[in-house]
Amino acid sequence: MDHLFAKLDNIYDEMVEIRRFLHQNPELSFKEENTAKYIADYHRKLGHEVRENVGGNGVLAYLKGAKPGPTVALRADFDALPIHEETDVPFKSQNDGVMHACGHDGHTATLLGLAKALNGMRSEIEGTVLFLHQHAEELPPGGAIAMIEDGCLEGVDVIFGTHLQAQMPIGEIGYRSGPLQAAPDRFDIKIIGKGGHGANPHETKDSIVIGGQLIGNLQQIVSRRVDPLESAVVSVCNFEAKNPYNVIADTASMTGTVRTFKEDIRNFIETEIERIVKGTCYAAGADYEYTYMRGYPTTVNHKEETEFVARLAGDVPGVEAVKETEPIMGGEDFSYYLQNVKGTFFFTGAKNPEWAVSFPHHHPKFDIDERALLIASKVLGSAALNYMKSGVKTAEPATR
Amino acid sequence: MDHLFAKLDNIYDEMVEIRRFLHQNPELSFKEENTAKYIADYHRKLGHEVRENVGGNGVLAYLKGAKPGPTVALRADFDALPIHEETDVPFKSQNDGVMHACGHDGHTATLLGLAKALNGMRSEIEGTVLFLHQHAEELPPGGAIAMIEDGCLEGVDVIFGTHLQAQMPIGEIGYRSGPLQAAPDRFDIKIIGKGGHGANPHETKDSIVIGGQLIGNLQQIVSRRVDPLESAVVSVCNFEAKNPYNVIADTASMTGTVRTFKEDIRNFIETEIERIVKGTCYAAGADYEYTYMRGYPTTVNHKEETEFVARLAGDVPGVEAVKETEPIMGGEDFSYYLQNVKGTFFFTGAKNPEWAVSFPHHHPKFDIDERALLIASKVLGSAALNYMKSGVKTAEPATR
Amino acid sequence: MDHLFAKLDNIYDEMVEIRRFLHQNPELSFKEENTAKYIADYHRKLGHEVRENVGGNGVLAYLKGAKPGPTVALRADFDALPIHEETDVPFKSQNDGVMHACGHDGHTATLLGLAKALNGMRSEIEGTVLFLHQHAEELPPGGAIAMIEDGCLEGVDVIFGTHLQAQMPIGEIGYRSGPLQAAPDRFDIKIIGKGGHGANPHETKDSIVIGGQLIGNLQQIVSRRVDPLESAVVSVCNFEAKNPYNVIADTASMTGTVRTFKEDIRNFIETEIERIVKGTCYAAGADYEYTYMRGYPTTVNHKEETEFVARLAGDVPGVEAVKETEPIMGGEDFSYYLQNVKGTFFFTGAKNPEWAVSFPHHHPKFDIDERALLIASKVLGSAALNYMKSGVKTAEPATR
Amino acid sequence: MDHLFAKLDNIYDEMVEIRRFLHQNPELSFKEENTAKYIADYHRKLGHEVRENVGGNGVLAYLKGAKPGPTVALRADFDALPIHEETDVPFKSQNDGVMHACGHDGHTATLLGLAKALNGMRSEIEGTVLFLHQHAEELPPGGAIAMIEDGCLEGVDVIFGTHLQAQMPIGEIGYRSGPLQAAPDRFDIKIIGKGGHGANPHETKDSIVIGGQLIGNLQQIVSRRVDPLESAVVSVCNFEAKNPYNVIADTASMTGTVRTFKEDIRNFIETEIERIVKGTCYAAGADYEYTYMRGYPTTVNHKEETEFVARLAGDVPGVEAVKETEPIMGGEDFSYYLQNVKGTFFFTGAKNPEWAVSFPHHHPKFDIDERALLIASKVLGSAALNYMKSGVKTAEPATR
Repeated sequence: MDHLFAKLDNIYDEMVEIRRFLHQNPELSFKEENTAKYIADYHRKLGHEVRENVGGNGVLAYLKGAKPGPTVALRADFDALPIHEETDVPFKSQNDGVMHACGHDGHTATLLGLAKALNGMRSEIEGTVLFLHQHAEELPPGGAIAMIEDGCLEGVDVIFGTHLQAQMPIGEIGYRSGPLQAAPDRFDIKIIGKGGHGANPHETKDSIVIGGQLIGNLQQIVSRRVDPLESAVVSVCNFEAKNPYNVIADTASMTGTVRTFKEDIRNFIETEIERIVKGTCYAAGADYEYTYMRGYPTTVNHKEETEFVARLAGDVPGVEAVKETEPIMGGEDFSYYLQNVKGTFFFTGAKNPEWAVSFPHHHPKFDIDERALLIASKVLGSAALNYMKSGVKTAEPATR
Repeated sequence: MDHLFAKLDNIYDEMVEIRRFLHQNPELSFKEENTAKYIADYHRKLGHEVRENVGGNGVLAYLKGAKPGPTVALRADFDALPIHEETDVPFKSQNDGVMHACGHDGHTATLLGLAKALNGMRSEIEGTVLFLHQHAEELPPGGAIAMIEDGCLEGVDVIFGTHLQAQMPIGEIGYRSGPLQAAPDRFDIKIIGKGGHGANPHETKDSIVIGGQLIGNLQQIVSRRVDPLESAVVSVCNFEAKNPYNVIADTASMTGTVRTFKEDIRNFIETEIERIVKGTCYAAGADYEYTYMRGYPTTVNHKEETEFVARLAGDVPGVEAVKETEPIMGGEDFSYYLQNVKGTFFFTGAKNPEWAVSFPHHHPKFDIDERALLIASKVLGSAALNYMKSGVKTAEPATR
Repeated sequence: MDHLFAKLDNIYDEMVEIRRFLHQNPELSFKEENTAKYIADYHRKLGHEVRENVGGNGVLAYLKGAKPGPTVALRADFDALPIHEETDVPFKSQNDGVMHACGHDGHTATLLGLAKALNGMRSEIEGTVLFLHQHAEELPPGGAIAMIEDGCLEGVDVIFGTHLQAQMPIGEIGYRSGPLQAAPDRFDIKIIGKGGHGANPHETKDSIVIGGQLIGNLQQIVSRRVDPLESAVVSVCNFEAKNPYNVIADTASMTGTVRTFKEDIRNFIETEIERIVKGTCYAAGADYEYTYMRGYPTTVNHKEETEFVARLAGDVPGVEAVKETEPIMGGEDFSYYLQNVKGTFFFTGAKNPEWAVSFPHHHPKFDIDERALLIASKVLGSAALNYMKSGVKTAEPATR
Repeated sequence: MDHLFAKLDNIYDEMVEIRRFLHQNPELSFKEENTAKYIADYHRKLGHEVRENVGGNGVLAYLKGAKPGPTVALRADFDALPIHEETDVPFKSQNDGVMHACGHDGHTATLLGLAKALNGMRSEIEGTVLFLHQHAEELPPGGAIAMIEDGCLEGVDVIFGTHLQAQMPIGEIGYRSGPLQAAPDRFDIKIIGKGGHGANPHETKDSIVIGGQLIGNLQQIVSRRVDPLESAVVSVCNFEAKNPYNVIADTASMTGTVRTFKEDIRNFIETEIERIVKGTCYAAGADYEYTYMRGYPTTVNHKEETEFVARLAGDVPGVEAVKETEPIMGGEDFSYYLQNVKGTFFFTGAKNPEWAVSFPHHHPKFDIDERALLIASKVLGSAALNYMKSGVKTAEPATR
């Protein structure tokens, strides 16, 4: 791997440049035309076979090695968020109200840099590397499923991906077999009562009172009805019943999210919410509307591929710790790839230990330690080369 | 009336004696055998026609006047309460755990004293006085309805009754046309969930959590669903779910009371409680049992009879104020008589202004100013004589 | 009075014209410049002494009678509501989003018509009639208090006013001594929790859950803490916590109204709301902001003036029933006048019995039976003339 | 081990006899005098050094091997439960209302049988076996802590124990490193409101309404305030507010349990319950009493000792599966031993696959497949002998 690592060290400055360029020019999910074009152009200049508009704005670039072998997909997502950036960095977003506040700019820069490095090692490559640039990870239904339907996984033997983590120290790699990220679903509830004058509650069916009660009742799903040894979240995040101060609310609308790791618990909660909504509305003589929208599935890493990456990550320069990470309740549409092919998704620490505060993902002051790009590119590159050489079984033993 | 008033003044000491004897020998509702016998004997000694065991322990005594005329019923109740007396009076209850804590001893003494006085005025009496001694006012279904079914109102033209009020100053008479006392109903709710180990809530349907929620939901009946210009009370007074600290409750039982003045609101609340119980249990997948037992009806005074008593009360020595009283939420089975014949029920102040505290009815330290007995006997006697003389229209004009 | 009534009959068509003109040209509270000018011009043409910009857009017009005597103020309000009219009347609002949906157009037309009639009867008038045209009744702090501070009641002996009632049949007059309309207060509550990712509730203080709980807890004020024989309303009418579906709410805002008839209950509720907000927030480790804004006071009619109007209304042609009305929970800033001078506020039925539906006040389809204008003008005119002639004691006995 | 296993096979019938004798003669926690005496006598007959009344009814019996070596403690508990047995077994409890409904009779029979077997192998034993018979496992504070304080662990190098599991198939052994059983705490809450007549809620502070609200609020601890990736339970299991149907509750009492695996979450919940109680009572102007009693600590198995037992269990005849088990929310005072010496606590399957239903522990129809006694005795015996021979590192490799 030393050859690869040396090349990446040389390319690091360019990676940072790319990341900063993308950071200055963020685009919202499903609207990433310019970013997609930028990526496609970059690969074309390297001479890679490029396929654009895959399942939307997705871009596929293929690097065929000198020798035959398996196809390894490496994925980076490239959409940004509807957040107004509040950092002081010189490469601050120039697209007001849009920001790379989740590190996807870094993911893309990492993958482009790695593409350049591997491009210069074609003779050593036994198989094909697919650079899978995915749009729209932030917004369900997400880009992954559309890209899969458009054939992005055809011929792919294994897939690897990483997420830069602003809360994990630089130098750390986090892995986990099995469930890594929860299934993030959405629900919408509308209480349909009967409005009226605030002075005459008996002529109304007070939607706000019903809604207040409902929120309380929903707490019991997690506190009483889900096995305490399992993880589940039911959050009502939005509540709107906009009225003058003296007009009782006709309707009240709620929106929220459910997070689970297991399909049976997910199904159970979808049903229980409706049971509680129905009973609560019945008790008040009110009607309701309820919709439950499934977000991404649980991200379930494959055991052998995960252990493979964990082992070889230990040998990557710059990696100081490889740790089994706890699962997280946030979702990720990398999950769809893992339902179709073997692979693993891991975390790359990106928190600069010298920063007083490291702002969380999706925060207007979010930032990363750019050295994480170099580390991520080395782990992903090592995974690709090792896999093509000998599969997941025989990764070089970790020297540390 | 002066003749009557003078006679009563002379009998006052005996009234007090009777009251104290009854106070020392209280008997629970539906178990007042000795008290009933005492009353019957008293009337028999006076030569009144007596009918015993009327609808249970009820006693009727008839005083026929020298001349024909209407029949006026005067009612006093005589049952006591399951309360352990905590006063220091020398005539404290000798029946442990039973106490005349509502003044029925005074009611009975008043009526017996009045019987003695009127008995000595037979030549002046134009009609019949029925001394209606009712058992079991404190415990629904009460004695009144059974006595009525047993014929106690046959031939009765009008009925008068009073309640000594420990919170109303001595010298005051309170009257009110229309609804005076609420209908006091009872409900029982049993939540049938599914018990289990306190460590495994997901295997149970937690009856205590459901019950807690239910109590909250029931508050909305009064706060949101009954016209704020009307009066209604829904109180859950008893909640039992007895379990070891680590066993989730299989069932939870609640008992409570509803108070209303209007039949449509009463019906509405009976229905709404079940609606709320049903919806709340549905939301939790639990079952329930619900019973609603109607207590006494609303006590509705007749307008002309009420104004008649209010007018003449003003002429009774010792009465310093005759006031329109607010309705009260407590119930009274005098209501049944008023559904069958004309009449009125009024309050006689019995609070000694020199007492630092006047304990409320049903309190273990309840007591009355005995001078109220004399006043009550005069108002009732005046009502009977005046009514027999000229009906409700032509009571002597009040001089005050 | 026949002279007055005949004159008003002749002016009726003009009243309707005025009402329709005003209906087409509604202006919002505190912005009624054109309406005020229209009113002032009308009075000036009649030769009345006019004072404009009284406490804002208020207009005072004085008609001095031929003989000296008391000053009687007659009040009409003239502001409209921020409602988009949905009726099909030919004189529909031409000021989109603004509507006379409470009958103030009718009040003003009534008073202008009456002004014209009385103007022609100057020789018979013994005293002064003050036509008190008030702006901004719909929006606290309202126009009345500012007009009073600006001297509108100087020299006034008595004040009369009426409200056209779309839910009361035409031909009916409703009166009530004592409390007629509730004090309509407003409260604002802001729960200050701590937002965060919907997947990580333990890192937040969930404002929506706290708010839901709070709404439930507030129900107890009316259901448990206010005497059931008294009237009170606490309504949370607005609840806003606007967030993406997966972001737990940082803050939740609630606005509502309190209605009471008695000052001690009003004070108690103001305090209890804060007690409950404070306790609920403490339990969740959250902060809060709470403001309570007092609206108009309770409208308390003076007994003699009320009975005076009730008596003479019985003689007004077109009046078929004069009834004691129940109090209503809605507020009215006529209350301020009654705190300063004697007087009464009564209701004039304006519901056409032939209409299938009579829409409530503040409804986009609200309308009135215009014949109510004539009736209202006759009752107000009769009150003014009778009062000036002989005060409240000696109104002509009702012939019906 | 074959020698041991053969001996145990021969003793099996006696084990069953012992178990049935104990089952017929159950004794409640802290009252197990006869059972303790029975155990001590059994060991004395075998010639073991016996110490009685250890920390209460605890019994220690020492078997010294022919050669020196470490001391291995094997623990069995022997108290029964206050449950009325409802099985049909011929050896049903003869102590009415007391039942071995958790398998402690089996634990004790297992250990006595094993004692007899090892007693016959003294020459092969290199060290000391301590048979640690513990009283009062079912009732906090439990017997373990008192026995430790009384020196039962002196000189002990390692401790092993097992629990027969009626829900785990016979032939299965369940092990787990780290937290195995939760810390089972208890809390008591008393709401001190103000009672009164059910018709006059405004004169009271309704403890039942406050309690109902409190139960709802407590749900938020688990649903909102504990990390969803962690396990915690807060169950209110008992709620008592006993009153006549028309008397508002003065006080309401609640008792419940908290289950946690981590000390910081345990501390947090203890504090949060009080915060919620305090805030909820403040909102209602009520007082409260709150006590939190810590039960046993979390049972945390030592890694090496657990893996040691898991490995050797695979070689025990009758064991068909050795599985990593999920933690359970129930508590166990074996936890105290593990805080003082190395060791592990494992589960032995005792569910007969041919039974239609296997009733849960603490159920009146609870029963076990007695073959589990033999398996448990072999695993415990193997653990003791292997440990004495070569410590945890070098257990014979599993042949399966």
